[in-house]
Amino acid sequence: MAPDTEIPTRSIEVCFTPKLINLFDYKDSIVVVIDVLRATSTICTALAYDAESITPVASIDDCLAYRNQGYLIAGERNGEMVDGFDMGNSPFQYINDKVIGRKIALTTTNGTQAIKAVEDAAMVVIGAFVNIDTLCRWLKNQDRNILCLCAGWKNKFNMEDSMLAGAIVHKLKNHFKIDCDSAITSEMLYMKGRHDLFAFLENSSHRRRLKRLHIESDIKYCLTPNQCNVIPIYQNGVITKLINTHI
Amino acid sequence: MAPDTEIPTRSIEVCFTPKLINLFDYKDSIVVVIDVLRATSTICTALAYDAESITPVASIDDCLAYRNQGYLIAGERNGEMVDGFDMGNSPFQYINDKVIGRKIALTTTNGTQAIKAVEDAAMVVIGAFVNIDTLCRWLKNQDRNILCLCAGWKNKFNMEDSMLAGAIVHKLKNHFKIDCDSAITSEMLYMKGRHDLFAFLENSSHRRRLKRLHIESDIKYCLTPNQCNVIPIYQNGVITKLINTHI
Repeated sequence: MAPDTEIPTRSIEVCFTPKLINLFDYKDSIVVVIDVLRATSTICTALAYDAESITPVASIDDCLAYRNQGYLIAGERNGEMVDGFDMGNSPFQYINDKVIGRKIALTTTNGTQAIKAVEDAAMVVIGAFVNIDTLCRWLKNQDRNILCLCAGWKNKFNMEDSMLAGAIVHKLKNHFKIDCDSAITSEMLYMKGRHDLFAFLENSSHRRRLKRLHIESDIKYCLTPNQCNVIPIYQNGVITKLINTHI
Repeated sequence: MAPDTEIPTRSIEVCFTPKLINLFDYKDSIVVVIDVLRATSTICTALAYDAESITPVASIDDCLAYRNQGYLIAGERNGEMVDGFDMGNSPFQYINDKVIGRKIALTTTNGTQAIKAVEDAAMVVIGAFVNIDTLCRWLKNQDRNILCLCAGWKNKFNMEDSMLAGAIVHKLKNHFKIDCDSAITSEMLYMKGRHDLFAFLENSSHRRRLKRLHIESDIKYCLTPNQCNVIPIYQNGVITKLINTHI
């Protein structure tokens, strides 16, 4: 590991929503896709509990087509589980023996679309509070620039995704150049709220939206760091666990 | 003026860059266009020093075409004055008798483009730190929702514009609903930096960009509140001083 006094050559940037992704030059970068409530937290959980893979798909119909190929099908629209699906977007539904060794097709309002928006990046990995330290240890040892892509809410900025981006910036900033106002602002937001993310996000628009769905326990889980020792990586349309002895 | 205990019916939102404007329903709203460094600060200054009007135009060629009609022509690209123009984008160039009673055609990298992006709004006004209290007193007494549109830097988020949006949110929040994570985040950013905006923005990307141009005095001016007792309003392609006895 490089010492804290190194002069950084790699950069870390933050893109607040997929709608802005074309403003960034990410083709040679590692993109960390972030949808804290709840897609990327759920993906980390499913892989930590030994699902074989997650295939992010854009539409409900695409998802249904995977059922005939033996996949579990999963997803939500506007926060609610899709009728007839095996699972919704609650991470607790994946802490279950039924996912072990299974392939899962997943569609969500924001997260799966964000992953597809950057499939031409050098590498795409999945970030959440639940896997943050494992992810950051690995990112620190790669040779590429990093772009954190927040899924947001229907292409709008949201606080929880940018706070996770800010947490990543904070943990990596001694090793990376930061020349991006979104990264600086994200880190400030994280530093202000980090001691009680749940209380801090109490008034965020997404928290209020999800409150109507009575999923407070999901939210507490998604905001609790380091419950999943995995790095999900998206390659050729499929998310699997990165096997890397240097983690 | 309504008391602080009113239940707000009007909303205030913040759009971080013109690239996201289509996500907002602003057609019946007042849009406050913000480009602190330096277009909207300069527009306020020109009108405060009795320029007759500012016509924002998209291109340098469009600007040149106005010269034959007797306009002063003004503008910058990437922070630098355009060759052969009467003025650049420095507010100090407008604190000058030569602007009195004159029509000015202005093109800038970000600000003038942002104004044109919302010309279908119910009202478009120009915001800057230099006119913030005059503007907020007027906004408080209107019946419409408000959208603060940050010009950003080439469609990316920037800190100084969102901080001004946050200052407006802070000054109006007792009278407006806030259900927008961008507005909440902007206000936090402002509250963190408000006691010394100049120092706070020291490391922002735009500050560093402008430092290369040696315009520190411009920046200090643009970050100093309440130097211009004007509300510039954009109507039919032209910005003039709003004459309103209720200001």
